[in-house]
Amino acid sequence: MEVSKIPAETSLIERWRQVRAHSIAIAQTLSAEDCMAQSMPDASPIKWHLAHTSWFFETFVLEKLEEFESEFIAFDPAFRVLFNSYYNGVGEKHPRPQRGLLTRPTLEQVLAYRKNVDQRIARLWQQVVAANDTAQLQQLQTLLELGLQHEQQHQELMLTDIKHLFWCNPLAPAMFSTPIDEAYSNPSLSSHSKALQWQTFDARLLEIGHQGAGFFFDNEAPRHRQFIEAFELGDRLVSNGEYLAFIEAGGYQNPALWLSEGWDWRQNQALQHPLYWQLQQQHWRVFTLHGWQALDLAQPVCHLSYFEASAFAVWAGARLPTEFEWEYAAQQRPDIADWFAHCWQWTSSSYAAYPGFAIAPGAIGEYNGKFMANQYVLRGSSCFTPAGHSRLTYRNFFPATARWQMSGLRLARSL
Amino acid sequence: MEVSKIPAETSLIERWRQVRAHSIAIAQTLSAEDCMAQSMPDASPIKWHLAHTSWFFETFVLEKLEEFESEFIAFDPAFRVLFNSYYNGVGEKHPRPQRGLLTRPTLEQVLAYRKNVDQRIARLWQQVVAANDTAQLQQLQTLLELGLQHEQQHQELMLTDIKHLFWCNPLAPAMFSTPIDEAYSNPSLSSHSKALQWQTFDARLLEIGHQGAGFFFDNEAPRHRQFIEAFELGDRLVSNGEYLAFIEAGGYQNPALWLSEGWDWRQNQALQHPLYWQLQQQHWRVFTLHGWQALDLAQPVCHLSYFEASAFAVWAGARLPTEFEWEYAAQQRPDIADWFAHCWQWTSSSYAAYPGFAIAPGAIGEYNGKFMANQYVLRGSSCFTPAGHSRLTYRNFFPATARWQMSGLRLARSL
Amino acid sequence: MEVSKIPAETSLIERWRQVRAHSIAIAQTLSAEDCMAQSMPDASPIKWHLAHTSWFFETFVLEKLEEFESEFIAFDPAFRVLFNSYYNGVGEKHPRPQRGLLTRPTLEQVLAYRKNVDQRIARLWQQVVAANDTAQLQQLQTLLELGLQHEQQHQELMLTDIKHLFWCNPLAPAMFSTPIDEAYSNPSLSSHSKALQWQTFDARLLEIGHQGAGFFFDNEAPRHRQFIEAFELGDRLVSNGEYLAFIEAGGYQNPALWLSEGWDWRQNQALQHPLYWQLQQQHWRVFTLHGWQALDLAQPVCHLSYFEASAFAVWAGARLPTEFEWEYAAQQRPDIADWFAHCWQWTSSSYAAYPGFAIAPGAIGEYNGKFMANQYVLRGSSCFTPAGHSRLTYRNFFPATARWQMSGLRLARSL
Amino acid sequence: MEVSKIPAETSLIERWRQVRAHSIAIAQTLSAEDCMAQSMPDASPIKWHLAHTSWFFETFVLEKLEEFESEFIAFDPAFRVLFNSYYNGVGEKHPRPQRGLLTRPTLEQVLAYRKNVDQRIARLWQQVVAANDTAQLQQLQTLLELGLQHEQQHQELMLTDIKHLFWCNPLAPAMFSTPIDEAYSNPSLSSHSKALQWQTFDARLLEIGHQGAGFFFDNEAPRHRQFIEAFELGDRLVSNGEYLAFIEAGGYQNPALWLSEGWDWRQNQALQHPLYWQLQQQHWRVFTLHGWQALDLAQPVCHLSYFEASAFAVWAGARLPTEFEWEYAAQQRPDIADWFAHCWQWTSSSYAAYPGFAIAPGAIGEYNGKFMANQYVLRGSSCFTPAGHSRLTYRNFFPATARWQMSGLRLARSL
Repeated sequence: MEVSKIPAETSLIERWRQVRAHSIAIAQTLSAEDCMAQSMPDASPIKWHLAHTSWFFETFVLEKLEEFESEFIAFDPAFRVLFNSYYNGVGEKHPRPQRGLLTRPTLEQVLAYRKNVDQRIARLWQQVVAANDTAQLQQLQTLLELGLQHEQQHQELMLTDIKHLFWCNPLAPAMFSTPIDEAYSNPSLSSHSKALQWQTFDARLLEIGHQGAGFFFDNEAPRHRQFIEAFELGDRLVSNGEYLAFIEAGGYQNPALWLSEGWDWRQNQALQHPLYWQLQQQHWRVFTLHGWQALDLAQPVCHLSYFEASAFAVWAGARLPTEFEWEYAAQQRPDIADWFAHCWQWTSSSYAAYPGFAIAPGAIGEYNGKFMANQYVLRGSSCFTPAGHSRLTYRNFFPATARWQMSGLRLARSL
Repeated sequence: MEVSKIPAETSLIERWRQVRAHSIAIAQTLSAEDCMAQSMPDASPIKWHLAHTSWFFETFVLEKLEEFESEFIAFDPAFRVLFNSYYNGVGEKHPRPQRGLLTRPTLEQVLAYRKNVDQRIARLWQQVVAANDTAQLQQLQTLLELGLQHEQQHQELMLTDIKHLFWCNPLAPAMFSTPIDEAYSNPSLSSHSKALQWQTFDARLLEIGHQGAGFFFDNEAPRHRQFIEAFELGDRLVSNGEYLAFIEAGGYQNPALWLSEGWDWRQNQALQHPLYWQLQQQHWRVFTLHGWQALDLAQPVCHLSYFEASAFAVWAGARLPTEFEWEYAAQQRPDIADWFAHCWQWTSSSYAAYPGFAIAPGAIGEYNGKFMANQYVLRGSSCFTPAGHSRLTYRNFFPATARWQMSGLRLARSL
Repeated sequence: MEVSKIPAETSLIERWRQVRAHSIAIAQTLSAEDCMAQSMPDASPIKWHLAHTSWFFETFVLEKLEEFESEFIAFDPAFRVLFNSYYNGVGEKHPRPQRGLLTRPTLEQVLAYRKNVDQRIARLWQQVVAANDTAQLQQLQTLLELGLQHEQQHQELMLTDIKHLFWCNPLAPAMFSTPIDEAYSNPSLSSHSKALQWQTFDARLLEIGHQGAGFFFDNEAPRHRQFIEAFELGDRLVSNGEYLAFIEAGGYQNPALWLSEGWDWRQNQALQHPLYWQLQQQHWRVFTLHGWQALDLAQPVCHLSYFEASAFAVWAGARLPTEFEWEYAAQQRPDIADWFAHCWQWTSSSYAAYPGFAIAPGAIGEYNGKFMANQYVLRGSSCFTPAGHSRLTYRNFFPATARWQMSGLRLARSL
Repeated sequence: MEVSKIPAETSLIERWRQVRAHSIAIAQTLSAEDCMAQSMPDASPIKWHLAHTSWFFETFVLEKLEEFESEFIAFDPAFRVLFNSYYNGVGEKHPRPQRGLLTRPTLEQVLAYRKNVDQRIARLWQQVVAANDTAQLQQLQTLLELGLQHEQQHQELMLTDIKHLFWCNPLAPAMFSTPIDEAYSNPSLSSHSKALQWQTFDARLLEIGHQGAGFFFDNEAPRHRQFIEAFELGDRLVSNGEYLAFIEAGGYQNPALWLSEGWDWRQNQALQHPLYWQLQQQHWRVFTLHGWQALDLAQPVCHLSYFEASAFAVWAGARLPTEFEWEYAAQQRPDIADWFAHCWQWTSSSYAAYPGFAIAPGAIGEYNGKFMANQYVLRGSSCFTPAGHSRLTYRNFFPATARWQMSGLRLARSL
């Protein structure tokens, strides 16, 4: 599978075609059986991702703009329920933990559904372009862009979810047979063997949130002011080697390092190391999309929960940065390593609305706002994030116990 | 799919071939995706059934008789763990609730595994026959017969498990497209519209358990004496119509009819009717392997838990028979309807060892004995039971809450 | 506290007085706080036992015979709900797991309730005796006897429940301060240090169940015939020393010895020994109503679940007796040790109705019958059983996982 | 019970005496039985509160300053474990859900423990004052003040916990028999029948957190700068009448109003109204420490979870304020009604460290910091808060589902 970065100047409709094709490319390395299984309620089958991203276009573009598309007929009315993820405004939903029971529709039928939606979108695009109605075109562009960004989010989830599924299988299948695929692996980062340097940032009132013309999710707005006290930030991500030192120093046995809820959870789960790590005959190895690999101590540590990231930071005499500190530093010092493309970075910020945040009317308003409780913000992006999907103001979010995402950390300290 | 009754006189090796082919025939109506999903921990994927029944031959025939088979090499050592159901004596087992995560091995690989095992069994058979060693031949025959009977048990489970899976799917797929398949449906039983007659049986000391030369499971032995007080038994199974009367009389709302544990369970589950029933616009329908069908009031009621069967019996002024009463009556009055081939019949007998029951040494001893706690015996057989697999002394058993099996009831009364 | 055996010839009303007084005597060693706590849903607070046994007399004697008692007025209408244990026929019940939240009524109020009920019962008795109406008198006698037997059952539960509560308290309070109270301890049984002898019993058709004039519970009837194949039975209970040998032989680590459901449960609970045992500095000790005591190897082992008793029996090359074998042997050989007064003995018999068993009409019919599912019969009696409450045909019953009762075992073998 | 406001100028040791006496005064209206029960894991028995607050003084004052107290001997070494709430640094803890099983020590013993601790503290105070060592005195003062504030927090919990316990009892006991006790009831607030007015606040950079000489908890520091965008705030709390309108408008049935996790929780719990509300014969009533009372529509709504408060705010076209907005407004406009003494007010702020927050070394550092995950800040105080315990910068915190605290809300809007 080849993943080429999409040049920024590419037209919307061309980008849309490439994104749609990229989902198919991911699935092509997998069998119909691989695409069906759901390893836990948090993860979804690949087939479901393929269908749901098409459902999104059918529901929020084709159905919403149905006056533009002369002959709107649902591909299959049952899909409205089956592939609705969490939009109460659209109606009934198939229960999330049962997505892996949908042996029908088959993968073949889902691919036909994708093709049908793509044809209808392409036709709609041509009609609207031909009609030369600027308002219509703008509305279509906005929704297409949202659907495309949404699909890119699911492309990352496809990889994290299949990784979890394959890890559950004692046969430990490898998704990619090529030695190390640059697009989907943690590139070996020699920089991580060098000592961490602290970068200093002055107290400052600055603007946070999206600015300018490009696409952004509603939760990145409105741009607003935050006052940030002086702090310092590590100039690289925490490495596997550093995390291993925490383990070997008894970090998983010392409640003084942990948040109270995190400690209870760690004990119930009997956790001793990050997800996907395994100690085998005194050698640590880690499960990847290429199967089991020896643990590379120089690489950034990944697959940590918020609770683990926080405990490590306390042990290291530091703390997690707030999302505002992260954005401030990444904005001021783009030269610092690892902001993007290695792993998402837990921040200490609870996922919350920016001042003046308004939820969009209708089902589309459920995209982000309703999840603003008991989740923590991750900033940056990971090696699983599709090319072109990263952004300085991007706010990813997961519960404090989530570990199957590409989640690591960067240290901060108050001054 | 054609299911022809295997004539009794068929040779063992020929019967073995037919049974093995029948499993494939069941799976052939299904896609690889259908064969992979597991709808609940109690059920297993079809692919798993196909593999496990082959594992059984590989482990308990090929491996056990390895001195007969000059060159025993496991098809895949990992399968020893993956497809072990519950035999602690064989070693590790893959966790039961995660059988639906095994996207690998693929269905194709499992079919290759089956073919490989079949070839090795056939070769072993030829070698042993050629060797003309009676002891060896007898041992091989005993194990082949056990494996064949074991596979027939799984053939029934394949049908109950796929039925449950398809019922979980809002698309309600039908496994069989032909109108009503005689082999796997409840045949319309006009006899059930006639009034139930009570058949009387005198008090008697009689022998219970398997007798004679044919195959039997260890739990059917030893044949021993039981004294049975006089009783009467219904001359047919309880019908859907009769059960509907129980529902409409408030049977699911009246704790006085229920066993205490059953009532608590019913309330927690908010049960109002048998599994697979649904009231739609004031008409009852029932889910079958042919999809949703109108409820036929004359057919035997099916998919009841022990608790429901017991509550119905109390409501009807009767009780469930013991398994000894059942065997006594079926032995004495083979002319009475419905002993076999419609649905399994709950008895009030807890699944327990017969006096003198001895567990076989080794892993094979785990086949039946270790389940003798908190389960109830069902007698007879169902329309899902493979031809030739029914037996007067057969003891099926499930927990009191199991409903996805073909389980109905027949009434009894003490005299 | 003095526990004197009540002579058999004592009049009913005198026995009733003594039984009522005995409950108070048990509670007198405890504070109001001790009487309030509930250590687990299976156990009840002492205060609740004191109130419920009075509720039983109020509901099933005073209220039922209300035409005999000219001026029936409930002591407190709310008590009808608060102290109903499980009688759906009487109406609402307070949720069982919340019995420990009833700080009101106070213990003092409950004692006043007891006194009130006792006065009304005594008055009713005088009125009925004076009226000289044989039918009335007989009905009253029957219900008083049932209430009295019911209260004796709760006297045993009061001891097992307070034992569990005190064991949960790190202060390990002792209920009795006197060295060893004969009535409530396992008397030192020197006989248990001698080798176990097997007693042989021939195959025989014999009558099982209550016979004669004395009191019995409905589940002990009707007397009926059972054919029992030849067997042998241990001439004493299994001792702590023998059970310790099972532990030391790895009995808790060997799944081959366990029933399948029992093994899963043992693993989930991480059980390594009977309830109330503890290994402290390489010495076993056991919690009793006198606090922690050194384990006496010669005493009968106690506080076993059915699953543990069964695993031990398999390890010992034996099995549990059926309840019919037990009754047969105890009937034929009353000279054998330990039938009664040490600990209840698990049998392999699932708790089920005797042929012809009929549930009494009304709420009183809920006494026994509705529990006949997923429970196992224990025979004999224990050192906690009140004097005069033991009986050859007595059927005690608990789920296979219950361990807080005084439950041990006696071995059997088929011949 | 009389609750007199403690004048601010009262000396520390005198305030300490009054606070200690106040805990006893609360318990004096209750029986030993009332003081023992625990209605849910979140709540604790009164006896436990009485003991734990003494344990706090024994552990963090007497033991810590043991060189000042010539003859330190623990009152009872077992209490170190029994009455440790959550301080891992002190050692083992009794499991929280089992606090209601501690029938021993008795209430009497706990009161003796309190008296003993009080005597030792008083003696220590005299010794240190006599020694005339400023450093020692200061250290003692700091710890006494912390223990006193800690005890006041538990005084509020004693009331919320006993309220929950009494609500669980069908007898619905009233703690106070006097008509309406001013100190512990929602005073009738006529102001709540008037229309809500919005108060406007300009965007501003301001200082947040404790300032000055008085006592404060570590989580209120360090004082630091926050930039707050312009907003408006309701000039009074939301009333029962307004919340009832939300209920009647279907607020509990409309997922569009709820946070996603809140909606799932509401459905699982089948919630339809605030805790302690009940609709009886078409009249709403509410459970209080005086028993059931008619719902007063003019009073502030109370006993809401964060999720309910948030859903109401969305329905009302508003939102919850951040804790910074709350502090800003309360600082600028102390004349606005209801900042304190009615009910705690949910804010949208996740409980997190202020910039530069440092956890104190030793077990005392566990006081606040380790709870900074998945909890939300409440500001103000309630009618259950002891006199003198309220503060502008006070940060109370509970999980989003907590409802048994005195928790209401005040509306905010961005400008």
